[in-house]
Amino acid sequence: MSTPDLPAPGSTERTRVRRIPEKAVTDRSVLHTVLDAGLVAHVAVVDDGQPYVVPVAYARDGERVLFHGSTGSRLFRALAEGSPTCFTVTLLDGLVLARSAFESSMHYRGAMVLGTCTVLEGDDKDDALRIISDHLLPGRWDDIREPSKKELAATLMLALPLDEVSVKISASDPDDDPQDVDRPVWGGVVPIREVFGEPRPDERGAAYPVPEYVKAWTR
Amino acid sequence: MSTPDLPAPGSTERTRVRRIPEKAVTDRSVLHTVLDAGLVAHVAVVDDGQPYVVPVAYARDGERVLFHGSTGSRLFRALAEGSPTCFTVTLLDGLVLARSAFESSMHYRGAMVLGTCTVLEGDDKDDALRIISDHLLPGRWDDIREPSKKELAATLMLALPLDEVSVKISASDPDDDPQDVDRPVWGGVVPIREVFGEPRPDERGAAYPVPEYVKAWTR
Repeated sequence: MSTPDLPAPGSTERTRVRRIPEKAVTDRSVLHTVLDAGLVAHVAVVDDGQPYVVPVAYARDGERVLFHGSTGSRLFRALAEGSPTCFTVTLLDGLVLARSAFESSMHYRGAMVLGTCTVLEGDDKDDALRIISDHLLPGRWDDIREPSKKELAATLMLALPLDEVSVKISASDPDDDPQDVDRPVWGGVVPIREVFGEPRPDERGAAYPVPEYVKAWTR
Repeated sequence: MSTPDLPAPGSTERTRVRRIPEKAVTDRSVLHTVLDAGLVAHVAVVDDGQPYVVPVAYARDGERVLFHGSTGSRLFRALAEGSPTCFTVTLLDGLVLARSAFESSMHYRGAMVLGTCTVLEGDDKDDALRIISDHLLPGRWDDIREPSKKELAATLMLALPLDEVSVKISASDPDDDPQDVDRPVWGGVVPIREVFGEPRPDERGAAYPVPEYVKAWTR
């Protein structure tokens, strides 16, 4: 997919990073990298003035993100009907141990997308399911049964364009106040990362070897 | 803090788990366990009909959660003024590899809190800062400088009661359709967990040993 002429992250009034603007990133390739590194996003829906935030599995597809829910979900139906949403991905990368409580913080990479979703149907919906599977479970699709008509009918597939976005990255050493720098205590960063544990077969799965594509997964 | 007479998770119309209700949990002690295991929550604020979802560091304090933001943040000021919010914590525990695309899913523990925040001031605010530090960076508080008056003035400390909540846990083996159970392919769960990496001192931190409390941290 060629890159369309889209605005830079943080370039609208609603997405401009006001707090700690030096952490804002305006490069769209960084937006893509952050979205591609995540597995779960937090999506908001407003119902009668009350916001709800639900986790969703997702994938980036060019200049949009794809995620799905149940046609039985009131919140997903609201998104399908064009209710404004916010789609946020946060990757926690570490704890920042400064010499003061105020400067203690976290390393993270975060992306926020504002907009309204469109519903995908037909071939677009089929393609989207495969794209999400390939992102979350690379290599798995060819080993499993594709969705039936009934299963497809129970699934709402949504696409949200990456039109109005912000990206924020915190990856620096502690930013200690001059009065604190000589405090005689360790300071620095304790990294955090996600790792995969040993694959655990279910009862029937134990009869088969762990697939090579699963062994290749890393976080 | 004694446990007040609070409703069970999922017991209001707004928090009843409709989708896959067998994953719903109504035990408040599980709510506490999930909240205590997380470091970051996703909090929603609605502004002019548009929801925003931002990540926050937080801690549970009895039957409420505490989190803070900047007094300079429009979204945090809206929360301070009583704008309805949703506070969601999601812990991703694994990938569930079923024999169909439809049943492929994730292991997770999730909590959602609805309500409005109150602003903490004075001693309550001081206590809350320490409680959050003790949750995220246990043992650190006594080594670092406490917040100055100016720093406190720049910090909005919010408390959200655990009055209206839902808890959902997905921890089962693949729930394959009868037509798929004999498909000749590995199935099971690939666990995911967060781990701490080797603490990395900054320039001045290298002169001191890594504190024992940091070495004791595990995820």
